[in-house]
Amino acid sequence: MEYLRDPAEIYRRSFATIAAEADFSAMPPDVAEVATRLIHACGMVDLVEDLVWTPDVVSAGRVALAAGAAILTDAQMVASGIMTTRLPAGNRVFCALSNSTVPALAAQYDTTRSAAALDLWLPHLDGAIVAIGNAPTALFRLLELLDTGAPRPAVILGFPVGFVGAAESKAELAANPRGIPFITVRGRRGGSAMASAAVNALAIGARA
Amino acid sequence: MEYLRDPAEIYRRSFATIAAEADFSAMPPDVAEVATRLIHACGMVDLVEDLVWTPDVVSAGRVALAAGAAILTDAQMVASGIMTTRLPAGNRVFCALSNSTVPALAAQYDTTRSAAALDLWLPHLDGAIVAIGNAPTALFRLLELLDTGAPRPAVILGFPVGFVGAAESKAELAANPRGIPFITVRGRRGGSAMASAAVNALAIGARA
Repeated sequence: MEYLRDPAEIYRRSFATIAAEADFSAMPPDVAEVATRLIHACGMVDLVEDLVWTPDVVSAGRVALAAGAAILTDAQMVASGIMTTRLPAGNRVFCALSNSTVPALAAQYDTTRSAAALDLWLPHLDGAIVAIGNAPTALFRLLELLDTGAPRPAVILGFPVGFVGAAESKAELAANPRGIPFITVRGRRGGSAMASAAVNALAIGARA
Repeated sequence: MEYLRDPAEIYRRSFATIAAEADFSAMPPDVAEVATRLIHACGMVDLVEDLVWTPDVVSAGRVALAAGAAILTDAQMVASGIMTTRLPAGNRVFCALSNSTVPALAAQYDTTRSAAALDLWLPHLDGAIVAIGNAPTALFRLLELLDTGAPRPAVILGFPVGFVGAAESKAELAANPRGIPFITVRGRRGGSAMASAAVNALAIGARA
């Protein structure tokens, strides 16, 4: 069977196709690097039209990673997609969802486990990279916690996905990011592959 | 902040939205269950238009899972997305990509690590659930191995993603599935969330 097997050439052609088809002209070059990785992760060049970002999100994220920032994720799939060998400072990747205390917290707060798990982020949130790739309630909860004085992450990579709350939580982030650099995608699209691709794009350009 | 927090209601509204917006009329009901989970994982109801399947894929997959079939994945993200508590027979989830022998195999075969890792599937392939959510070369390699007499999996859940080989490998699967029940999505879309959602949809309906 004839197919391309060379990993370097597969990468090269993939990124060449993305560069040829997607319009990054509205973006700073470093944000375009992240957008390219997001498109690469999902196979959809039109994703670029729905991205919303602050111009400082990539530089802030890279400075934080180089300084050893923790990476907080809402789902184990996001954590699994992070190329830990590319992290510049042995950064900790932390997903609290499977912690044994989370079901009780969720029952106490009458919310999802994904949102309740954010209580366990609090000791690690100051200056962290937040990567949300699944639950709209996790992003809503983060914004609530920030409104009540929680420690401030360095950047928010906001990619919850789906039909209930995803578009709304990302619209709230874009409308009022609480002064925190962010990148997100409007609408229902998102997912763990995008969230981990965003972390990886920051890591690849970060210098410790 | 006002948002829906009740997990059961979030699920209910998500699936109600999908049922209202997506047209499953061309599908058997059990394939529609899988399609619903795929759409839920990616937030895109038009995915249904690009799905290709054999009518027996869900029944064959559920019978295999109930009988204890192993689940073979090309990427750790796919494995991470599988709800192991829902598997009907304590089924083994196996991703060989990080095995220490894989880089040498990839160099020997002059291919990607994702494709080379399939050598390590061979002892487990007979009757297995194959879930490919990342690498087109893994799906191509599987079809090559089948053409040379490799053991036959029970079903192929084929969701490689991206710009080089993804559409081509899935088109080859759809054109010639080698007699194996399958579900796939035409074109560039795919990904680990879809592959694990397909496994989870099989598992939820399987009876041990």
